[in-house]
Formats: sequence, C-alpha cells, structure tokens
Amino acid sequence: MPIRVDVEFVARDAFRAVERGDLIIVVDVLRSSSSIVNALANGVKAVIPAVTLKVAYNVREQHPDFLLVGERRGRKPRGFDLGNSPLEFARQVVGGKTVIMTTTSGTAALVRCRRAECVLVGAFLNAGAVAKKAAEIAQYENLNVSFVLAGEKSLFSLEDFLCAGAIASKFPAGRFDFSDEALAAVFGFEHVKDALSEYVMRSRHARHLTELGFQRDIEFSCRLDHFGLVPVYRDGKVTLMR
Amino acid sequence: MPIRVDVEFVARDAFRAVERGDLIIVVDVLRSSSSIVNALANGVKAVIPAVTLKVAYNVREQHPDFLLVGERRGRKPRGFDLGNSPLEFARQVVGGKTVIMTTTSGTAALVRCRRAECVLVGAFLNAGAVAKKAAEIAQYENLNVSFVLAGEKSLFSLEDFLCAGAIASKFPAGRFDFSDEALAAVFGFEHVKDALSEYVMRSRHARHLTELGFQRDIEFSCRLDHFGLVPVYRDGKVTLMR
Repeated sequence: MPIRVDVEFVARDAFRAVERGDLIIVVDVLRSSSSIVNALANGVKAVIPAVTLKVAYNVREQHPDFLLVGERRGRKPRGFDLGNSPLEFARQVVGGKTVIMTTTSGTAALVRCRRAECVLVGAFLNAGAVAKKAAEIAQYENLNVSFVLAGEKSLFSLEDFLCAGAIASKFPAGRFDFSDEALAAVFGFEHVKDALSEYVMRSRHARHLTELGFQRDIEFSCRLDHFGLVPVYRDGKVTLMR
Repeated sequence: MPIRVDVEFVARDAFRAVERGDLIIVVDVLRSSSSIVNALANGVKAVIPAVTLKVAYNVREQHPDFLLVGERRGRKPRGFDLGNSPLEFARQVVGGKTVIMTTTSGTAALVRCRRAECVLVGAFLNAGAVAKKAAEIAQYENLNVSFVLAGEKSLFSLEDFLCAGAIASKFPAGRFDFSDEALAAVFGFEHVKDALSEYVMRSRHARHLTELGFQRDIEFSCRLDHFGLVPVYRDGKVTLMR
C-alpha cells in the first residue's frame, strides 16, 4: 500500500489527522516551527509548548530555571525572557536550557496533536531532514502522513502551505499517494522555491510581521534546509529526534 | 482601495463569500463549469441549475421542451437526455434549447450563491474571459471578488484550485489584493500551466472520472482560454453575459 499524504489546511482540523492515526508534521513557519528548530540547533534541551499564558507562567513558577519564550499579537509578553523570533535563540542565551514556549498558533497546533502516534515539527529550515525522517518512520511503522498547518487564528496561511509542499516534494516518488491538498502544496512550492522569501513576503502574516519590524525573521525562516535536525513532540515536550 | 481576492476552498463555505457581498466566481472544472461553458458556446439559451433530481424532474414536467442533463456518481440519471460530459453538448443537440442541469457538486455550489450580487461561472475553458469580465464589474461596481470551489462532496479539489489560480493570475496587477488562498492558487497554477491536463489528471476526481471512461472530458476541460464567453447566474438561470 502506498503511504497516503494529507494536509489539514487549518489547525482546528488537526483532530482529523489525529483520528486517522497519522504521523503528523506540524508546520508554523512564522514563527514557532522556525524558532523551535533554531532553538534545538542552538542547544536547547527541550521546548515545552504551553497553550495559554497562564499555563506558561505556572510551569515557570515550578521551574524557575526554565526560560519563558513566545508571543501574543507578535510581541513578547510581560515577564518573558525571549519573544518568538527564531534569531533570539542564540547559543549563549539558550544553550543547555529548557524552554517554555507559548505562541498564538504554533504551540496550540502542536498541543492539538498530542494524542497522535508521532508528531514532528517542520519548517523550511529543516524541510529535507523532516521529510527523510517522516518517510522512514511512516514506512517502518506503516503510518500515513498528515501535515497540520498552524496558520494564524486558524486561518489558512500561505507560508505553511508552501512549507508543507517543500517537505512533501522530498518524499520519494512512487511509494507516496498525495491528496489533492498535498499536490496543491507541492505545485505551489515548486513555483516559488527559487525565490522563497520573496514569495513568502507576500503572505498576510509576513506583511504583518514586517510592519512589526520582524522582516529578518522571515528571511531567516525561509532558508531552505539550513539545518539537518528533526524536532519530535512527545510526552508534552519537543526534543531533538536522535 | 484595492480589490480583495478571496477563495473559499470548499462549497459549504460559499455563504462566507455571499455574506461579504462579493462578486462570486463559481468553479467546477470537472465538470459542471466546463459543461455550462460548452453548452452556452453551442447555442444553449439558458442552464437552470437544480439541486436535487426531484426538482429537476419537476421543472421538466412543467417544461417538456427543456433538456434534462447532469449526473449522479458521475453517470447520467434515468430519464435524462444528457449526462455531464462537456463533449455531449453538441450544437445539433442543444442549440437554442433551455437545459435543466443537476450535478453532485457544481449546480449545488451555484445555488448556494444565489443571493450574491453577481455570480459568474469559471472554467479553464473561459479563464481569461471571466477574469476580464470579473475585473471590469468589480471595479465598476466596487465589489471584492471571491472564488467558490465546488469540489466534490464539499472536499477540496485540486483542479478547481488550479482554475481559480488560472483566473486570478489574469487580474491586472496592482489594483488587486490577493488573500493567502488566492496567492496559493496562483502559484499552483503558474507551476502547472504548461502541462495543465497532465497535472490535473493527478487529482482525485480526475482519476475517478478516468476510471469511469471520461478521460476525454478532462482533456477538453483543460483547454485554457478555448472560449471567450462568460456565463452569469441570475434569477435562477445561467445565461451568456452580453
């Protein structure tokens, strides 16, 4: 049987992917996924996604040595150590630490998938690596694959769609059966891949982040295959898959 | 103010486009939109969309001279004059006639939009013409534009997505503000446009139609800009826009 590849365009439909029993790749290019990837690349031990500020503050109270990072409306909440810019996760700041992260969309999308068999975090930064690992696991464990696009406020988001396409385009041909949504994402990515950040810059969320002064985050988040690492979400935290 | 371009990926969300007060372009490439375009090109006076077989049979009883056309599960229902193959609408069969059409998705999507200000029917066959007309009306009447993708059983459908992209890609740049959905569709179309039918053939619905023996319908429906006509849906029927 070929491996089925599906895409849930909005995070509120994540439950479908969970119910199907799929291996899930959660994508939130701007900016949670990219931040998680860069955090792990810079030595973060684990990222604990928290859905609400309250949960985040509570975890911090229990673990004063954990860093508190994330955003509301794009900006760093009161009392947080870092915002949600991937570029803030410098090794000298985060190396060896555990991080509590709460963001408007990305962390919520992750938590929606907590009951899935296997949840990976995908970004442009690690597209090739996550594709390779997902394909291996899916074949070995006999799982289908679903992308869950975090979007923003459960709206469809262009950059997450293109990133699902970037990852899916690397699945070895023949053994994978793409849904219409997955094909659309692959075709979209193929059109933009040679000028990725230029195209991504046209998305609603990228324009909003640019207005807030985060244009460098977008450029960084569009570096295709910059890292070879794969974050996996299990038992309530995101760690490097070994 | 630029004209906003949105896409409703599934027909059950048509109400959103209606509530926004947008000019709506209904797309059902395989096969209602393509059949309507070819029917009008071959001299059909009007197409009356009927949601159920019962409604269709009732209208026919009142108007025995009308042709009864359409499909259920891809095939011509009992007592119908024609199925839903665009190629069946030959001038010698349909010229000068009024046609009652009921299909699983396309006619239902049209009827969902009946309260909209202006509803056009879009296909690859008339992509350029419908883009030009929609842009003119939108600017003249100060309307935003929404695509409603008919899909199949309210599922996302690749061919309708690509067709929305084909049409949107012809809107004059600068005066139009594309949503993330609209940008995704345009990027997808740009990737496939030079081998349209080959790519469309990979969609779920196209594969199903191919199994039923309708491959020629797909090839015909993928002829980009084959016709310069624009069907408009108002007062319960689809006619040529003059």
